[in-house]
Amino acid sequence: MNVRTPKPTPRHHVQRIKDRARYERNDAYAILDAGFLAHVGFCVDGQPFVIPMLYARIDDALVLHGSIASRLLGELSTGVETCVSMTIVDGLVLARSHFHHSANYRSVVAFGRARALDDAAAKTVAMAHFVDAMLPGRAAEARPPDRNELAATTVLHFDIVDISAKLRTGGAKDDRADINLPHWAGVVPMQLRYGTPQPEQDCAGNALPASVRRLLQRPPA
Amino acid sequence: MNVRTPKPTPRHHVQRIKDRARYERNDAYAILDAGFLAHVGFCVDGQPFVIPMLYARIDDALVLHGSIASRLLGELSTGVETCVSMTIVDGLVLARSHFHHSANYRSVVAFGRARALDDAAAKTVAMAHFVDAMLPGRAAEARPPDRNELAATTVLHFDIVDISAKLRTGGAKDDRADINLPHWAGVVPMQLRYGTPQPEQDCAGNALPASVRRLLQRPPA
Repeated sequence: MNVRTPKPTPRHHVQRIKDRARYERNDAYAILDAGFLAHVGFCVDGQPFVIPMLYARIDDALVLHGSIASRLLGELSTGVETCVSMTIVDGLVLARSHFHHSANYRSVVAFGRARALDDAAAKTVAMAHFVDAMLPGRAAEARPPDRNELAATTVLHFDIVDISAKLRTGGAKDDRADINLPHWAGVVPMQLRYGTPQPEQDCAGNALPASVRRLLQRPPA
Repeated sequence: MNVRTPKPTPRHHVQRIKDRARYERNDAYAILDAGFLAHVGFCVDGQPFVIPMLYARIDDALVLHGSIASRLLGELSTGVETCVSMTIVDGLVLARSHFHHSANYRSVVAFGRARALDDAAAKTVAMAHFVDAMLPGRAAEARPPDRNELAATTVLHFDIVDISAKLRTGGAKDDRADINLPHWAGVVPMQLRYGTPQPEQDCAGNALPASVRRLLQRPPA
């Protein structure tokens, strides 16, 4: 994998609380790889748009996919400056003071430009990555796209030019003067959990696939 | 509550899959009220920034709060056009084809402009709302901000000018021709769950507060 020098440039340099910032690509990639939905921002004549999109990372790029208005997809695919942001919330941080309430989280902000893929093979690979980003191993359990489906799908390729990660872990950071207040302080962890799979009526007889069985066994990211 | 006419304007008109769009403010507000972290986008000289921020809704406005670079907060508070986006993922939609894989979700995109609050009373109210957005009832269990904390906190007030919601529910929408493929299809529900509270060492003897006890009893949104 081609990892760039993690030297911060002005647009992604985290100014505040610098110990929460991680410029190393691999740290940011680990966070990206734990999710599959990002918020993608771009500007049209000074008007910002922030749109939820499915993504998957392929080396130093993201592929992006969403049912957003074709007008917006058209704007996005012209190669305008784009910012992709995603956050995983890991817990509520409850302090004795309102001021020190916070959240534990892992977040990534990536900058680059997007372009529409038009190569059928590359789009086919991207679609398998979207499916596997949602559920590892799932792409091998389903039918790849045919020619008509590829033609009907817009996939954007986003080269990650700058990226930074930021995270908060640990407990409440109360002021010393507040320690003896009678209020409880601590962290309530948060985690995405998967519920009981709901098969479609017309395949209710089929056994759960291996991807779903693994998902229900492992703790989520 | 002052609810505006839900007539769509061009920047937030959902063009595709129109039955997933909801222009009614109250539907969008219900989704906003189920979360507390949004991705906030704005443009600086054509460069988009998308930043995770804590939010709370107060009537037809959001208050926004985050530890983002003060330079970016400064830009955001000048009243530039701003887009606030948030998404809750409710499930993985697993189809027989890659093409029909999807996610169940609820999302909101809101447009407006932000300005920094400088009134101490308004900032105090906003901070209680941030705390209660994370955990209903928590603000009453902790110390409100003092003068120094208010001075150290930037709170942005964002009037919601345009807003739209979009959601997907239900099962996989496979092509008829794929129904007899041997692949499993269905939905795996996803939900945020709260784990065992981790008290700070110096208040470990305190009983869990009512807010946390309620949180652990109720299913999350």
